[in-house]
Amino acid sequence: MSPRESQKKATVCEVGPRDGLQMAKGIMPTEVKSRWIAAIAAAGVPEIEVGSFVPAKLVPQMADTDAIVRHAVTIPGLTVVALAPNLRGAQNAHAAGTHRVSIPVSVSEGHSRANLNRSPSEQVAEVARIVAWVRSQPRKMEVEAACSTAFGCSIDGVVPVRNVVTIAAGLAEAGVDEIALADTVGYAHPSQIHEVVRAVRAAVGEKLQGLHLHDTMGLGLANALAGLEEGIRNFDAALAGLGGCPFAPGASGNIVTEDLVFMLESMGFATGIDLPALIAARDLLREGLPDEPLHGQVPKAGIPKTFRAAA
Amino acid sequence: MSPRESQKKATVCEVGPRDGLQMAKGIMPTEVKSRWIAAIAAAGVPEIEVGSFVPAKLVPQMADTDAIVRHAVTIPGLTVVALAPNLRGAQNAHAAGTHRVSIPVSVSEGHSRANLNRSPSEQVAEVARIVAWVRSQPRKMEVEAACSTAFGCSIDGVVPVRNVVTIAAGLAEAGVDEIALADTVGYAHPSQIHEVVRAVRAAVGEKLQGLHLHDTMGLGLANALAGLEEGIRNFDAALAGLGGCPFAPGASGNIVTEDLVFMLESMGFATGIDLPALIAARDLLREGLPDEPLHGQVPKAGIPKTFRAAA
Repeated sequence: MSPRESQKKATVCEVGPRDGLQMAKGIMPTEVKSRWIAAIAAAGVPEIEVGSFVPAKLVPQMADTDAIVRHAVTIPGLTVVALAPNLRGAQNAHAAGTHRVSIPVSVSEGHSRANLNRSPSEQVAEVARIVAWVRSQPRKMEVEAACSTAFGCSIDGVVPVRNVVTIAAGLAEAGVDEIALADTVGYAHPSQIHEVVRAVRAAVGEKLQGLHLHDTMGLGLANALAGLEEGIRNFDAALAGLGGCPFAPGASGNIVTEDLVFMLESMGFATGIDLPALIAARDLLREGLPDEPLHGQVPKAGIPKTFRAAA
Repeated sequence: MSPRESQKKATVCEVGPRDGLQMAKGIMPTEVKSRWIAAIAAAGVPEIEVGSFVPAKLVPQMADTDAIVRHAVTIPGLTVVALAPNLRGAQNAHAAGTHRVSIPVSVSEGHSRANLNRSPSEQVAEVARIVAWVRSQPRKMEVEAACSTAFGCSIDGVVPVRNVVTIAAGLAEAGVDEIALADTVGYAHPSQIHEVVRAVRAAVGEKLQGLHLHDTMGLGLANALAGLEEGIRNFDAALAGLGGCPFAPGASGNIVTEDLVFMLESMGFATGIDLPALIAARDLLREGLPDEPLHGQVPKAGIPKTFRAAA
């Protein structure tokens, strides 16, 4: 392997404790969740989205997010991410010690109204308020905005690329540190990933950092590959593809962390993650949510004898 | 869409009736199998690998291949493919009216010995005998050779690219019409697809036509995407990802035809296949093999409202 090859790196952010658990039928006990997060971090996962600062009445699975964040920030080296849909949530995230807050901004009107009860442009304005407030605080916290439904919407259907660009440009203007594109409902295909990533990067440059992909149609890793080819190096994924999809019974959720790490490492992208240890962390997921189906091909088939982790 | 875009095409060969059923626990009744093949053809699938000319004692699921081929060749417009491991099998395939015979040639010594009881070079010599015999017949039959274990072997482990090139070059020399590369055990990753396809094409040029991929590690469609990027336009796939993997319980089999077609059509590659009709053909698979697990994300999630078939 050439020296240049040996420097290829990719960053995986585990979102199972947030996006996965939020969709799960059961509620994982706080104590198991904390051990599960610790096991994922111990496997070398550098970033974990551990919860959402949303009303417990709306999302009971996230009711313990404050306690979970306060525990997670004690794990050495881990970047602790939490979702917050508004200023109030971001303030709570900051108070708990969150390192990076992720703000969802739906590109499609229908999803924005249904999920946030605001129009997309109203949510961009909320992000601007969040950035201003965070910058006024003595303790730093990164602000990431995730453009939801950037590749299609189960309510509005096709989402025009120009709308994604408009929202992303508004978020860059609002001063966020990073922008991610989310295939919230799993409608994306590889050509679309190329097209949308290029268009958004033309508008906001290197602020575009990450892709958040779902495997609803089975194209999750092909879409991740298209993102890699466009220079994207940050990917969200969920252990065991946890979560499913509320509008598509039987469909899987986020792309599977284990399979993504297998692909990245096989291709020479170092993730810092120990694949056997990551797979072992499924045991805690099984303990905390015994009725939840666990996805993932590499854990089922076993790591093949030809596998070599990236240097 | 530009005129050039509208001419993008890809060919899907359904291999479920051969590779899928061969791995299945149950035996599909001949009558259901014939109706199943007819339904797949009616959905627009242009090529179907309908069976194997192998001893019924070894592979009882394939005992009816002669009858199945004789029925399948009556379906207008369908290219009927059958596997044959040796000259005797190829002669039987020819007698039944098969349009294209596919000969497996393992690149790895261990797989070749276990599967064919011959070394790779002995099997290349057998292919030369098959080609000579076929060319001597009044009725034409295409001869395709599939390089098994081209991306790794569950017995021998890593398969050097130079070995794949050597076998492929020998097959071109033997005069086959087409060469395919098979990820028999599902160990391939996208960078490897790029590397091996380029190396083999440098040796045999446009004789390299197809990819036969398995989804053992969840990378099947990402590998197909890498193949597309290398100019590969022929892909094997199995309805419902039928088949599994004998060495990896719980792992899935061939890449899922439904999901592959969804990806290709979404990306603007016309396949000629009607996706809803293809998905409906799962009913006959369920009827013929009620205990077999059916894979595939698009059938579970439903075709999204943003989907448009390629022109």
